Order: sequence, then structure tokens, then C-alpha cells
Amino acid sequence: MTAITINPPPRYFNISSPAEYVAHVEINRPDKLNAFGPPMWPELRHIFQQLSENADVRAIIISGAGEKAFTAGLDVTAASQGELGSTNNDSADPSRKAAKLRRHILDYQDVISSVARCEKPTIALMHGYAYGLAIDLSSACDIRLATKDVKFCVKEVDIGLAADVGTLSRFPKVIGGLTSWAKEVCLTARPWGAEEADKNGYVSRIVSNKAEMIQEGIKLASYIATKSPVAVQGTKNILDAAWGRTVEDNLNYTATWNMGMLQSTDVQRAMLSGIQKKTPKFEKL
Amino acid sequence: MTAITINPPPRYFNISSPAEYVAHVEINRPDKLNAFGPPMWPELRHIFQQLSENADVRAIIISGAGEKAFTAGLDVTAASQGELGSTNNDSADPSRKAAKLRRHILDYQDVISSVARCEKPTIALMHGYAYGLAIDLSSACDIRLATKDVKFCVKEVDIGLAADVGTLSRFPKVIGGLTSWAKEVCLTARPWGAEEADKNGYVSRIVSNKAEMIQEGIKLASYIATKSPVAVQGTKNILDAAWGRTVEDNLNYTATWNMGMLQSTDVQRAMLSGIQKKTPKFEKL
Amino acid sequence: MTAITINPPPRYFNISSPAEYVAHVEINRPDKLNAFGPPMWPELRHIFQQLSENADVRAIIISGAGEKAFTAGLDVTAASQGELGSTNNDSADPSRKAAKLRRHILDYQDVISSVARCEKPTIALMHGYAYGLAIDLSSACDIRLATKDVKFCVKEVDIGLAADVGTLSRFPKVIGGLTSWAKEVCLTARPWGAEEADKNGYVSRIVSNKAEMIQEGIKLASYIATKSPVAVQGTKNILDAAWGRTVEDNLNYTATWNMGMLQSTDVQRAMLSGIQKKTPKFEKL
Amino acid sequence: MTAITINPPPRYFNISSPAEYVAHVEINRPDKLNAFGPPMWPELRHIFQQLSENADVRAIIISGAGEKAFTAGLDVTAASQGELGSTNNDSADPSRKAAKLRRHILDYQDVISSVARCEKPTIALMHGYAYGLAIDLSSACDIRLATKDVKFCVKEVDIGLAADVGTLSRFPKVIGGLTSWAKEVCLTARPWGAEEADKNGYVSRIVSNKAEMIQEGIKLASYIATKSPVAVQGTKNILDAAWGRTVEDNLNYTATWNMGMLQSTDVQRAMLSGIQKKTPKFEKL
Amino acid sequence: MTAITINPPPRYFNISSPAEYVAHVEINRPDKLNAFGPPMWPELRHIFQQLSENADVRAIIISGAGEKAFTAGLDVTAASQGELGSTNNDSADPSRKAAKLRRHILDYQDVISSVARCEKPTIALMHGYAYGLAIDLSSACDIRLATKDVKFCVKEVDIGLAADVGTLSRFPKVIGGLTSWAKEVCLTARPWGAEEADKNGYVSRIVSNKAEMIQEGIKLASYIATKSPVAVQGTKNILDAAWGRTVEDNLNYTATWNMGMLQSTDVQRAMLSGIQKKTPKFEKL
Amino acid sequence: MTAITINPPPRYFNISSPAEYVAHVEINRPDKLNAFGPPMWPELRHIFQQLSENADVRAIIISGAGEKAFTAGLDVTAASQGELGSTNNDSADPSRKAAKLRRHILDYQDVISSVARCEKPTIALMHGYAYGLAIDLSSACDIRLATKDVKFCVKEVDIGLAADVGTLSRFPKVIGGLTSWAKEVCLTARPWGAEEADKNGYVSRIVSNKAEMIQEGIKLASYIATKSPVAVQGTKNILDAAWGRTVEDNLNYTATWNMGMLQSTDVQRAMLSGIQKKTPKFEKL
Repeated sequence: MTAITINPPPRYFNISSPAEYVAHVEINRPDKLNAFGPPMWPELRHIFQQLSENADVRAIIISGAGEKAFTAGLDVTAASQGELGSTNNDSADPSRKAAKLRRHILDYQDVISSVARCEKPTIALMHGYAYGLAIDLSSACDIRLATKDVKFCVKEVDIGLAADVGTLSRFPKVIGGLTSWAKEVCLTARPWGAEEADKNGYVSRIVSNKAEMIQEGIKLASYIATKSPVAVQGTKNILDAAWGRTVEDNLNYTATWNMGMLQSTDVQRAMLSGIQKKTPKFEKL
Repeated sequence: MTAITINPPPRYFNISSPAEYVAHVEINRPDKLNAFGPPMWPELRHIFQQLSENADVRAIIISGAGEKAFTAGLDVTAASQGELGSTNNDSADPSRKAAKLRRHILDYQDVISSVARCEKPTIALMHGYAYGLAIDLSSACDIRLATKDVKFCVKEVDIGLAADVGTLSRFPKVIGGLTSWAKEVCLTARPWGAEEADKNGYVSRIVSNKAEMIQEGIKLASYIATKSPVAVQGTKNILDAAWGRTVEDNLNYTATWNMGMLQSTDVQRAMLSGIQKKTPKFEKL
Repeated sequence: MTAITINPPPRYFNISSPAEYVAHVEINRPDKLNAFGPPMWPELRHIFQQLSENADVRAIIISGAGEKAFTAGLDVTAASQGELGSTNNDSADPSRKAAKLRRHILDYQDVISSVARCEKPTIALMHGYAYGLAIDLSSACDIRLATKDVKFCVKEVDIGLAADVGTLSRFPKVIGGLTSWAKEVCLTARPWGAEEADKNGYVSRIVSNKAEMIQEGIKLASYIATKSPVAVQGTKNILDAAWGRTVEDNLNYTATWNMGMLQSTDVQRAMLSGIQKKTPKFEKL
Repeated sequence: MTAITINPPPRYFNISSPAEYVAHVEINRPDKLNAFGPPMWPELRHIFQQLSENADVRAIIISGAGEKAFTAGLDVTAASQGELGSTNNDSADPSRKAAKLRRHILDYQDVISSVARCEKPTIALMHGYAYGLAIDLSSACDIRLATKDVKFCVKEVDIGLAADVGTLSRFPKVIGGLTSWAKEVCLTARPWGAEEADKNGYVSRIVSNKAEMIQEGIKLASYIATKSPVAVQGTKNILDAAWGRTVEDNLNYTATWNMGMLQSTDVQRAMLSGIQKKTPKFEKL
Repeated sequence: MTAITINPPPRYFNISSPAEYVAHVEINRPDKLNAFGPPMWPELRHIFQQLSENADVRAIIISGAGEKAFTAGLDVTAASQGELGSTNNDSADPSRKAAKLRRHILDYQDVISSVARCEKPTIALMHGYAYGLAIDLSSACDIRLATKDVKFCVKEVDIGLAADVGTLSRFPKVIGGLTSWAKEVCLTARPWGAEEADKNGYVSRIVSNKAEMIQEGIKLASYIATKSPVAVQGTKNILDAAWGRTVEDNLNYTATWNMGMLQSTDVQRAMLSGIQKKTPKFEKL
Repeated sequence: MTAITINPPPRYFNISSPAEYVAHVEINRPDKLNAFGPPMWPELRHIFQQLSENADVRAIIISGAGEKAFTAGLDVTAASQGELGSTNNDSADPSRKAAKLRRHILDYQDVISSVARCEKPTIALMHGYAYGLAIDLSSACDIRLATKDVKFCVKEVDIGLAADVGTLSRFPKVIGGLTSWAKEVCLTARPWGAEEADKNGYVSRIVSNKAEMIQEGIKLASYIATKSPVAVQGTKNILDAAWGRTVEDNLNYTATWNMGMLQSTDVQRAMLSGIQKKTPKFEKL
């Protein structure tokens, strides 16, 4: 099996390849509940930029190391010593502070967006604490699974701010609109568990425990990896492009995408394999 | 506790403050199933414009007086004697009637939009009949609870018209798209109850009876009122701004919003309180 | 009862009128699981263009002939001998092939869009195989019912392509966003059944078997047909116009639509009938 | 001739009717170069809301009293004592100041938008100083004329802020995009005169002096007032609705507008008059 | 030279091929100033649908037969006997008339849109009267030339209606926004000539007389026809797709278009020819 | 004067600071007419990313070294040996080539977008050849000046492709829409000079020769640099955000931007200086 590596190797994330064409990104700071400190942000972008273009990768699973958490979110202690904490303790002009904060937010948003932009399907596998940033991150993934013991929370109002690195833009997109429940959990910062996540469509399904979930995730990723990567990556791109645009816009975009992509040899291989009842093999992408 | 008042006081709505920072707007025309007659529209706008900017208000609950109805909708008898009824019984030019009707609709839409524009979170508490205008109104709220006995209906096709003061624009937004069920209840005007409302995400949850629901609503509103109003109101604003726009648009808008708002003292208070395990107190907004 | 006819009569579809103002379009190629071969596309557009403007039609049901399938989707054997198959077996310039493919896709999209554009409500009644094109087609309908034995599949990645005649644009719209489940079934091409369809809101409800479903469909269509066609068709138009646009855009569009439509005699008939507890009769539209 | 009045009469604006169906709004604070102080804002909205629905008005001209200025813009001295000045001289939380400022800006924007929303065509007649707010205001009008001596300026950067009540949103719309010249005058706050205004399409044409311009404005407004008000007001509405939307969106909106408006008796009157070479008379609107 | 034919041949339009790969569409009803009567609409769509996909066509010029007019617009006498005239002389329900009118307008819009959708560049060559429909039609073309004697007019308000088959959606797009001049000519229906057309960017340039203009048009079309049709048609498509969308949207669309189109052999032919100082020959498209 | 440096220093661009707060970026490959070879792209992005956040920079001018050219565009010889040239000379699957090309185009677009995203105003100073990429690059700047001898060309169709790194998205935005002239120069690739650039609004004005233009550019940049950077950078951001969005969207965005930015000390400094007739000094940003 091809090893999947990131160069230079990240310090806070383990990267492995548990199955052919499948990459596993593990958030690896278990002693801090996988909370995100400042150096982890650029690492995360770095990882997804490389995986996005790595032809040995066709699907990606993301999970958190240890038994306790997918991620408890932003490392608030670190944040309070950095950008968030410093904003009022000096005499700088509010507009100049604002300009700096805006750059900072846009940069952090871009990290999460690098996950959303990843050309390959991404599957978030969540257990234990999945708070704050966990929602930003997993809402930027395509598919979400969770364990029975998962504890979700759109935590940001509890630290005095509106979630600004993606949750408010992507959460309503992935759970089906600005429903009463979506507003409630965003406005109250109350935690919610597996049952609510399932009922409200945040996850595809609930798995008993972490070990099983990882196996389920690898199985799902591997299954996707057997399909035509041209078809899979095109499907992801077009689905995401559709959001917030009209149906007419997306139909035109789809036709424009597929005028190039239907020339793929995958179409013929897939159709031929279908007729011959064989499993097709597709070139890398 | 601070009293919350509206000046001049409305005639068809009771305004009270059942808990700190919580306003209760009660539709008060129980002998007519709380149906909306002409004078009630400007009153409703007037109320929400004032509550929106009232620093003693952090969350608002809306309910209907009496045992029978949240609201049975438009007072059809009054409407048939007014604008709707008169449209064909004279010889005026159809285009001139159309121009007048358009102004009229835009004005009524603006009343419902004043609820949607309200800067503070709004919670609709619905029991009994919640027909027609009840859907326009509650779809413009952030959170919806209902009792077991609630009877919902997108009633407009039954009086020969397409719902035009908000339901068709906001109902798909708050229940998760143009689902088969959404189309069915809008095209047939058939009533639906608590179970369907819950299954299709129209409400956060179902409560046994009106008294309990009011208590639940006050509790939820009070809970929201303990949170940073900067964070809560920002969350509401950004979530609503996202709809019908692309993710990229909303991320930029979010960063622009938060470049000013992250300078809030609430962030430091909230973080400090979190570390100290205390409940933070926030300045009014 | 008025007969509803299409001229010239289609060869692969049966057209009938099982109830007053109700049209029944039956896909009639049961020996091929109602798979769509090339001549069926223009017929389908032809049918819906005529039904859309036929004043004897107020609601339309669509089903598949035979016991086995609503439709198994594109006739892949035919496709592989035609446009899809030929794209790589000659020496033509890839950009010129692309231009031809784009015209072809836009034309096929337009067929499915003719169903979505149909002014009258459409109800898809699905049993057995409902694969590939079945999702494009039924997502373009307003209401969907299915039997317990239905087998759905967004099949396209299995033939090496991203679904391009409507599914990727309309499926997220009708099931409530880019949910984890929606992405999963689109990216994996795994089949799903009645239970998942119901849980994820793809259908209004599940019916025991095909015969009952047809009866249920006729009943629902007939019920819609008793309502004001001005109200029903306006409701459909405005709901569809809302998607991918902002609430403000849609409110203005709604007011502009209704400034003409509120002058309908249906409003007065409906209100009068309501007061008199009679069933109103409406003029054709 | 019908007198056109506003109730209650504004204090800082003269309202007259110099010709049939024509209203003249004159900014009347000539000793302060018609600069806008706080009480003038609500008056302006009040005026345009009433003129918009006044059936005796078919076109509106707007000019400034005195020889020196259309308007020199915001009364900076007043502003520096009010909202703008106070923002930093107290210890309030920056986020709470921001929330207040946002309400304030939205309210001022709404005043200018009331001019843009006015259903009747509006013609700005500008001479002398036309600085800052003059650009916000005249960009919200439909037609602009100016005298040879006019001095325009997008003045805001000179008082330390980005123009926020309309110029940055409407100026590129009315002069043809984000041209090099548009960016230059907005980023530098350098004044520009009649010749540049003409060359860059900000005005329809240049007139020798104020007296002639007023006559020209009345003549143009009167000419518009002879036309079908249904046609004129529809044209204005549809043109404005088109901006920032796609061509396809606007075509649909146009058809929806005209389905009601083509039933106007004006169409028959106009066509008949055309054939008979007579001047048609139209009902009020 | 390849003859370019339309099947069946149109009755009111002459089709010829004055130069290689150039089609000439001549509106041919000179005795009626080339006014459009009912049968001409479907013919026009028919012509442009065929030219759009005809590989022998790379550029199209459109002109009017005779010395007097490009086209005087809608044949008002015919219109007054048809759809427009009949709208008020019967007792039908206004909403049902509206529904019919809407279908009618959408159909007429689609004819003009068929010119805008044409994949090949289109050049309108205008002389004499170019009134009403002439503006709808030429605004749907890519390039416009006119003679010194041309008389333009957005004529619709003179017949009591807002222009509804394209002018209000496309005219601001092709002349640079909702300028003062654009609003003036649309709201007043006053005629304008060559000089204003040139100054306001409606035409590329003014030519002395019709004969010269036709030669100029053929020359320009022939020049375009020597270029890579992949490049030319892609440029047209992308430019049109950009309008009313954000820059970011269009960049993504452009990349998606070109991922297929850059594989064209035209790129290599063109680059090689450039190096060899030869004129490249491109395959048909 | 503060030196402005880029780290690591670029090889193909000279960076200097000809006046306080002004940066000068000079394309420095004069022996190749400043044509862009592969290593120049990342350098350009690198430069503008740093200048965007450099508090010593308030305005940027961009010019080309030598007497002959601003830039002749893409280095076609290099391109033909790289990505563009290789696309057809191997046997790879067209869809996989397409995916690679798309990444490549998106990356090149991002370079040009880094100029557009630069927070500081940018002024393109163009002389001699300004072909192809010169239009992409200068359309991404805010202000454009040119010399009498400038030769512009949207050159791409001449090398067989639709311009794809920005011209087709930004050129219509900066010259006032999809005018006849814009379409003509994009579809024909014919060169155009100073006079046409001026008439069609592509440049603010024409300067006699390169030396004078550089002086003029420095003067304009210096003038902008004296203004409040909070006001200037906010103006740029809001103007750009407005394009392709509705007026209502942009008004809301503007209010949201300014709620933070009006708290700037610049407002008080600027107003005070205005009253005192002094030149204000502003803090860095």
C-alpha cells in the first residue's frame, strides 16, 4: 500500500493510510482534548492542500486521538493570551484593531475553507467532546459519523463571540436550513448529543463506539475510493458549488464541468465493467 | 425586575416581562381566535421596532391569549370588507388596482419582516389554531415550540391566494428546503399537527400543554438572556444574513461583523468567567 | 370527465385522466424497467409543455408501468452506443467534443427542467427501482410518494460521471441541504430504501404497495384540483422562485406576482364559500 | 393646477408643483450651503414616502435653494457634536458603540433609500457645491442634470470615513462600473466639475446656469408626466430591480410585473392615440 | 463558399453568407419598416437556434432590408388586434388574463434570448428607424454598429407599457449601468441618434451609410471568423455568464470552462502560427 | 523615508518607495518586453501579500521597466513548453488533464486576485505594449493611467483560448459593462490605443510619456497616502464588495463595515483638521 505523507510532517496531526487510496488525518493533542493551539492552524491547511492534490488519495477520514474528544475546540487559554485577549488591553485605535482582527479571522477561516476546498471527499469521525471549532471543521467535511457518547456544542456564544470561522455559514447548509433547532443550539450554546445529531441530520448515522466508528469510516472511505475519482470529485465540486446559487446557475455550471469530464475513460470503463459484472479499475487523479 | 413597556401601549397585544431581560408579547384578541384585524398590523411593527432597540430586552417570547389559538390568521371577514374584497367590485383599471395592492402587500410584508429584523432572539410559542398568518409570523421567529394540541395550516390557498406576507419565502428556509412535505402542505392547505411539525423540523420540540410551554419558553429565553448579548445578537444577524447567499459571501460578512465585535469586553469577561467557573455578567445592549 | 390528450401522442408514455382535472403520466417501457432511451427525452418535454398549459389539468401524477420499476434510469446500453460511448473513440479535438457534449447535456437538462417548469403541481409516485434519472426526474417534481419496496439510487458515479441533468442541483434543494446523508448517497452511489427516504424527507410518506400509492396519488392530486388554481399555481411558482435567492428578493417577487393575482375572482369565491360552508368552484386556468 | 402638499409640512424643504403632475423638492437651508443637519433626515424620508404614493405626482425634481450649493453634504459641525464625535470620548465597550453606530447608519441609509424607492421618477438638478451627501442623494435619483459651475466631490475620505449611506453602493451603478475614474474620485476625495461629470456619464447633460437648469428639469419632468404612469413607473421599477441580478432573473421578474400591468387601459389609450395622432390622457396612479 | 441555409427557410428573413464562415440575417419586411408581426417571432428563434449550432458559421451580422429602417419595432397594429388589444375587452378574470399574458411574454422573451444564447458572435448593423424591439434585439447582440442617420428609441412607454422582452434587462448591461442617460431615454421614450449612441457606448462606432456599414460588418465578422472558434465562443460565453454574478463566481466558472477547452488543438496551432508568422487554420466548431 | 522591502526579495520585480507611504512595483524583465515567465507568478503574489499588510504602504504604483512595454503578457514560448503545450502531446485521459489544468488556472487566477485583494489602492501605469496578461493585471488594479503610445490588447483569442486569469471577469467591471466595444476588443484581439482607452473609460487619463506618467502616478499615490488609511482602505473594500451584488446587500455590508470603522480616531482628527484648516496626520494601518 502506498504510504501517504505530508512534507514537512505536521507535529499535531498523525497522517496515515489505513486502506488503499484512503488518508487518515488524526488530530493528535489528546492531553489537551485535541484543542487547537496557534501552531495547529497552519498545519491543518498544509495537510489538506497536499491531500487535495495527492493522486494516491481518494477519500479522507478525520478523527481525534485519545478516548475523550474529537476536539474540544479552540485552545481558549492560548487564545486569551493572544489575539482575542489583547484586543482591549491597550490604547490602540479601535479601527486599527478591527483591521488586524479582520485579517486574523480571514486567515483562520481560510484554514477551515481549505478542508471544504479539498477536492477529495472528507469524512469526520467524531467521539467525546466535539465543541466549537469541531463544528466549524466537521461542517466543512462532506460526511459526518459520530459515536453514541459524542457531545456536540456550538460553543462560541459562551466565550462572548459569534462563531466566525465557518459554523454560521456552513452549519445551516449541512443540517437543512435555519431550523428552530439550528437557531436554538447556536443561540444558546447548549450541548447536544448523538440522538439530536441524528434526528436533525448532522450525521449520517450513529456508531456504538470509537473503534467501530473508525472501522466504519475506513470502510466508507474505501468504498468511495473504488469509484471513479473523476465522478466522485466532480460530484463533490458541483454539489458544493450549488449552495446559495439558483438552480439555473448550477445547471449551467454542471454542463460546463461535464463537457470536459465526460470525455473521461472512466465512463467507458465503468459502463463496460457494469455490463461485464466486473469491478472497474480507474487511473489515479 | 425592569418593566418593559411600549409607547404608546398597543391595544391588541399584552407586553410584559416575565423574567429578567425577557419580553413577552401576547396576541390578545382571544374572542376572535387572535385573528389579525387591520389595526393590529401597525401595532405589531411598532412593538418589535421598540423591543429590537430596548437594552432591557435580550430575548422575546410570543404567544396567543386564551385557550384556543396562537392565531387563526388574517381576520378574513375584515379583509373581505377591505382591500381583498374590494378589488373586483369597481371599474378601476386592473393595473392601477395592481399598483395599490402591491403597496399594500409590501406594507404587510414589512410588518412580518420587522419581527425577522428584530435584533433580539424571538421564540414563538404556539398552541391551538396556528393558521395562515401564524406561519408567516412564526417563520419570522428564530425558535418555535408548540403544544401537543397545535393545529398548523398554510391556509392561504383556501382563500384563493398564494401566501404573500412571508410564508413562501421563509417557511422553506426554516424547515430545510423545498421538501416534498413542505410543498404538500403549502399546495393543499391541509392542517398538520404537533407530530408532523416535530418530524419536519418546524419546531424545536413539543410540549404537553400551553402552561408548560410558556414556562419552557420563559426558561429558554432567560437562558439566552444570561449569555453575552454581543455574541447572541451577532449570531442571529450572521445566521440570517447567510441565507440565499454563498458560503464565501457569508464568511466575508462574518469577518467584517466580528472585526468590530471581537473587541467586546464580553469576550474577556466570558473567558475569565469560564476559567473561574463563575457566571459572567454582561453590559446591556 | 374531460379526456386529457397529448398531440402527437407519445409512444413511451401513457397519458390518462383518472380524476377530474388530474393527469396521469405513466412511463411505459416496463420490459426495460422503464429505462430512458433516446426517443423518450423529447417525448417527456413535449408532454409536460402541453400539460403545463392545458386548462383541464390542475395536478399531475407520474408513475412507472409494471411491477418492477419507476425507472431504472438512463438506458446505459443505448447511451454507450451514442453520445457517451463515442466521446473517446475517435480523434476529434477534445475541445470540439466538449462543445458538442455541452449542447447535449444542456438539452437533456432542459427536458428535466420542463417538468420543474410545469405550471401545475406534479406528484412522483415511485416503486421498485428508482435509479439515476429517477432522482433527477422526481427531484423536479413537487411532491414524492414511494412504496415500501422502493430502491432509490443516485447511480451516476457508478457509470463514471457526476450526475448532470438535475440531481446535483435539485436533490439538496428538496431534501434540506447538503446534509451528511445527501453527500453520502451522492458520493457512494449506494442504494437506499423507503425508510431512509422518509427519514431524510425525500418523500412525504411511504405507502404499502403500488396500487395503494396510485390511489393515494390520485386522491392527493384530486384534492389539490379542488383548490383555486390561481392560488395553487402561484404558490408553486413563488416557492420555486425563492430557492437560491435572498428572502428580500423573494418578498418583492411575491408582491409583484400577487399584485396581479389578488384580483382573481377566486379570492371572493373562496372567501364567500368559506363563510357559506360550501365548496367553491373555480374557473379553469 | 393641483397643489402638492406634505403633511406635516417640512421645515427644511420647500415643496411646490411647478407644472402639472410635477413636484419640486427644494433643499432649503441656503445659509448653510444646504448642509444636512439631524432634523432634515427624517423630513426627507417623510417627503419621499408621501410623494411616492401621491397620485397627483408623476415626476419629481430636486434642487438646492440659493446660488451656492445643491448641498455641501453632511453638516459636519453638527455631526461632530453628535454621533460621529461621541464615539471615542467615553469608555463604552467598542462592540456596544458599534451596535449603536450600525443602527444609526442603517437609519440614515434608509432615508436615502426612500428616495431610491420612490415609485415616481426623480431628477436631481445640481449647481454649486454638490459634496458628500449630494452624491449619495443624487445617485439615488434616476436622472441628473448639472450646471457648468457645479463642483462635485465624494468627500467622505476627507472626514476619515468610507461613504456609508449609499454612494459606494449606487455610484458605480449609475456611472457604469468600477471604472478607473470612479475609483480615483472615491479614493482621493478630489473635487470634479461639469466636464468630468458629463464625460463619465454621471449626468445626462450640462446646462449653463441654475435658472435654465430648473426650467430644463421642469420641462423634462413634465414630458415624463405626459406619458402613461403605469408604463413609466413600471420601467423605473424593473430597471432598478435588474441591478446586481442576472439577466434571467430580471426577465422573469419583468414578465411577472407585466402580467398584471399589461391589462392597463393605458395600453389601449396609447395605441389608439398613436394611430389617431392625438395626445393620450391617462388616469392617475 | 459554403452556403448557409435554414430549414425550413424563413419567410420574413433573408439568410445569406457574404463571406467564409459569416452568416447574414436580414430582416425582410421593408414595406412595413421591418416591423415584427406575429409570424416573425418563431422564425427568428428558429434561425438563431440553427445558426448557433451550424459549424459553417463563426460570426453573424443582422441588418434590416430597405433604406428606411433596421426595424421600427413591434407591429403595433397587429399587436393591438392580438394579445395586447384583447386584454381588456372581455369579462375574463384578471388573474387568468395575467397568467396567459405571462406565458406570452415569456415566449417572446425567449425569442430574443435565443439571439443572446447563440454560441456565435452576433453583430447588429442598424440604420434608419431602430425603435422598440430594435433595442431588445440589438442589446441581445454582442457588437453594434450604426449609420449616421440612425434613429434609436426605447419606445415602449409610448404604447403604455414597460419594455418586457429584454431591453430593461440587457440595455443597462450593454451601455454601462443605470446611468442618467439610460434612465432618461427609457423613461421618456425620446428618440436619440448616432452621436448619443456613440457617446454612451451603445455602438462600437458610427459608419457613414448603410452600404458602408454592411461592408464594415462583413469585414469585422470575417476577421472574427479567422480566429480560433474555440477561443471566440468561449470568450463570448464567459463574458455573458459574468453579468450579475460576483467576480469570484465567474473566475471559478472560467476555470471550469477552460479545463476542457485548453485541450484544444487550436492552442497549439495558434501558438505555432504565431511563432511561424503564418495564419492558422482552425477546425470547424 | 522608510524603505519598503519584500522578503525574500523578488528577482523579476524591483520594489522601491519613491515617496512616503508609496510603494513602486516595477516589472523588471525589459529584454523580454516584461513578459511573464513561470517564476514571476509566485513572486507577484508574494509581493502583493506583503504590501497588503505592510503598515508603511498606503498606495502602490505598478509599472514596467524599459521603454517598450508595461508587459507583453504571458511568455508564450515558455508557456508552450509547459502546461499549455503539453496538454495534447501525451496520451493521458482528457478528464485527468482537465483536472490538472483547472488547478493550474485557479492558481494563476489567485495570483492576479492577490493584486485585487491587496488592501491598499493600486495604480497601474502603462506604456508601450500592454497585452494579454497586462489587461488581467491592470483590471485588478484600482486606477489606470497610460501614455499616448500605449498599445493595449486582449490578446488571448490569438493564442486559441478564452482569457482565463481575470480579464473576462474584471474587464467589463472596470470599463462599464458588456459594451459593444468591450465585446469587440475581447472577441477580435485587435489592439487599441490611448484614445480608445480614454473614451471607453479604461484609464483615468492619458499622459504624454512614461517619465511624466511615473511622476503623475507617484503624485496621485502620494495624495492618496495623505488621506486617512482607514477611510481609503474601507472605501476600496466596500466598492469591490459591491460588484455583482444587489444594492441592498451592499448597504448592509457597508453598515457592518463602518460600525467598527467609524470608531476610528481618524474621524475626529480629520474633522478637527478640517475646522482648523490643517493637514491631519493619521496613524499607520
